[in-house]
Amino acid sequence: MSDDTKPVENGARNRHIILTSHPTGHQKPIALKWGAASAKERGPVVGTLGAGGQRNAIGAHSGSYALYRALAVASGALSPEHKPDLTNTTPATTIGPNPQWSDPSKIVSLDPFGHTVTESFAEHIAAGLDIRPTIAVTKARLTVPELLGEISSGRLHPDGSILLESGEANVTKVAIEPVWHLPGVAQRFGTAEAELRRTLFEQTGGMFSELVTRPDLKVFLPPIGGVTVYIFGDLAAIADPACHVACRVHDECSGSDVFGSDICTCRPYLIHGIDGCIKQAQENGVGIIVYNRKEGRALGEVTKFLVYNARKRQAGGDRADAYFERTECVAGVQDVRFQELMPDPLHWLGVTRIDRFISMSNMKYDAMVQQGIEIVERIAIPDDMIPEDARVEMEAKKAAGYFSEGTAPAPEELSDTRGRDLQDY
Amino acid sequence: MSDDTKPVENGARNRHIILTSHPTGHQKPIALKWGAASAKERGPVVGTLGAGGQRNAIGAHSGSYALYRALAVASGALSPEHKPDLTNTTPATTIGPNPQWSDPSKIVSLDPFGHTVTESFAEHIAAGLDIRPTIAVTKARLTVPELLGEISSGRLHPDGSILLESGEANVTKVAIEPVWHLPGVAQRFGTAEAELRRTLFEQTGGMFSELVTRPDLKVFLPPIGGVTVYIFGDLAAIADPACHVACRVHDECSGSDVFGSDICTCRPYLIHGIDGCIKQAQENGVGIIVYNRKEGRALGEVTKFLVYNARKRQAGGDRADAYFERTECVAGVQDVRFQELMPDPLHWLGVTRIDRFISMSNMKYDAMVQQGIEIVERIAIPDDMIPEDARVEMEAKKAAGYFSEGTAPAPEELSDTRGRDLQDY
Repeated sequence: MSDDTKPVENGARNRHIILTSHPTGHQKPIALKWGAASAKERGPVVGTLGAGGQRNAIGAHSGSYALYRALAVASGALSPEHKPDLTNTTPATTIGPNPQWSDPSKIVSLDPFGHTVTESFAEHIAAGLDIRPTIAVTKARLTVPELLGEISSGRLHPDGSILLESGEANVTKVAIEPVWHLPGVAQRFGTAEAELRRTLFEQTGGMFSELVTRPDLKVFLPPIGGVTVYIFGDLAAIADPACHVACRVHDECSGSDVFGSDICTCRPYLIHGIDGCIKQAQENGVGIIVYNRKEGRALGEVTKFLVYNARKRQAGGDRADAYFERTECVAGVQDVRFQELMPDPLHWLGVTRIDRFISMSNMKYDAMVQQGIEIVERIAIPDDMIPEDARVEMEAKKAAGYFSEGTAPAPEELSDTRGRDLQDY
Repeated sequence: MSDDTKPVENGARNRHIILTSHPTGHQKPIALKWGAASAKERGPVVGTLGAGGQRNAIGAHSGSYALYRALAVASGALSPEHKPDLTNTTPATTIGPNPQWSDPSKIVSLDPFGHTVTESFAEHIAAGLDIRPTIAVTKARLTVPELLGEISSGRLHPDGSILLESGEANVTKVAIEPVWHLPGVAQRFGTAEAELRRTLFEQTGGMFSELVTRPDLKVFLPPIGGVTVYIFGDLAAIADPACHVACRVHDECSGSDVFGSDICTCRPYLIHGIDGCIKQAQENGVGIIVYNRKEGRALGEVTKFLVYNARKRQAGGDRADAYFERTECVAGVQDVRFQELMPDPLHWLGVTRIDRFISMSNMKYDAMVQQGIEIVERIAIPDDMIPEDARVEMEAKKAAGYFSEGTAPAPEELSDTRGRDLQDY
């Protein structure tokens, strides 16, 4: 099982380091049948270190926060043997099972049974196996400052349950950690599983050699951010064909979502999404916001800020006609959000039709339709919600094929749509 | 250099996979002298794959987004040979050099020259080496909805430059990717470097075997979220002893920061921090918000929501006297944010004294003082900004030693401070 062992320098424990592992006859990873009809038949995802050879997943729990857990062990703050006490942590409301859970091609980037582990795999846990939830479902009351304005302007009306007089809103919210079934992920991207495994390993600078040495382990817990789902109204409406579903899929943009930077439409569109979700929930339906941790089109915030500077300093200033080009110069690609995996949380919730899709993105629309989710109507952001400096982004996107209710801008309009210069802040 | 080579299955390229690397006489990583007085003497951090044996860092650029870049290569959207065109991307304002940059113990978790690579390492780049910025500096105009309310209530006054009549604020903002100097990180945590390397490798389920096989490579680019710094007012005030510095160090909480969940004080305290920063900038000083991507005390959002459920369902309901205990049951530890590394962005900016520290956290205060940054005054969140359901958190923290202007609550007050039940949403 050990590729290489070497003595450890000062201070470290005196035992061999196992650099990678290989499939052997000795170890018996817990059986896992992705897409099986029941949790029992599917088997648990086992990604904890204490499980030893019974582990059936590559990587570690908590996405990128696994590294902080490792730091906690290194600093002596956390015992490496700690097993969670999951008393009282089960979902605040029931979700599923839904038919999509037993179609191995419908859900490939999360564990549909991730919120039910204490119940679904009680026998394994009682036998001492450390199985962890990868999904948590709770309730929350939201205080979004813009909603009070929406009430006083008459765009929203409190109902005392979904939206209160105070402007607060009640939701069910769900945190989802990434759990990738590698054969399914490869299929979504039209590549071979072995090629995907190898490229993920090599292009990250050598992250998780088990991606290549353990082709028998089909599940990967990648160290990336997860997904949060906010549900307004009654979840049962999803399964009722007479009810309507509104949905916004929002990719994180901390600069706008938290701090309100006016260079993009992210927070305004999110607020418009929340508005639409509340209205739909009040009209005998349900509203769903899916919030993905994919900062800066999943290129990260350093690349994003470098691109802002390049846009504002280029000859002719920040222009809609050069919007996408600048990202491509810096990053080599316009966008790496890969909407291919995005529909999974909606499949998990049982959504088959979105009546009001609050997004202009053609990439999101295409991915949703490709995955068999019908979209009835697409909702653009109202013109009066677009910050002045964000018109560069908006016009560039419309010209590139994003949905809009008007006509796409002509080339001369694109070069005339200008943003603020760096010295004008 | 290859520990193990194996043929790759269907579809993959027909060449050997290098599972890990070892120090050899053949490869010559670019020399790196952490804490050297100048960029030239220090040398560039080289973390790109194209650099081959010249690489002097373990891991990959962009924190956890490295995985999306790898997906882009796997899907054929990005050439693995792409080199960024960094034209016009340099900082929108000059930062440093500061004396702290040449003290190897002051900065251990970011590259102080990370924003100046095109200038500092122009010769290396001209010679074809792919060196990437790990810090980007730009300008932004913020539209924070609460600020308009602060203006109309007379708590804030527009000045036409830092704060506009419209309620918008101008800032310099900085994105910072993690760059860890492993000997320095080990020292902050009071552990041996070899022990730190081994634990990071093993406790993440085998992430980056070079952590153990390449003791000659001292720098690690971990796949975690980074830091964003928002600066209100004139940066030059930091170096002027006659000027004052206000600062809030804020750890991300998407549920409150973006969606305004009322179970915690995160967004209200952030707004109070922005208020304080604007006021300080208007009074011949500067205000600094440091925003760290450490969701749910760096335990992640799934753990956070599991804990919410456990708190609200325990016997006696959600109570201040059982607040910390519930996190510890689930996660094995109350908090893994590790404020030990937190002061680094302030060292990088040249901060030696914070006149108004807008935080009640004793962990943040202790870390700052330990790192030699003087704190003159600590600012609590005003009582009228604390959401009703967040009193459980607030009272528990005060009892645990967080700073407050009043007296810490007595045991019976703690058990009397109750939050909402799950059925009351």
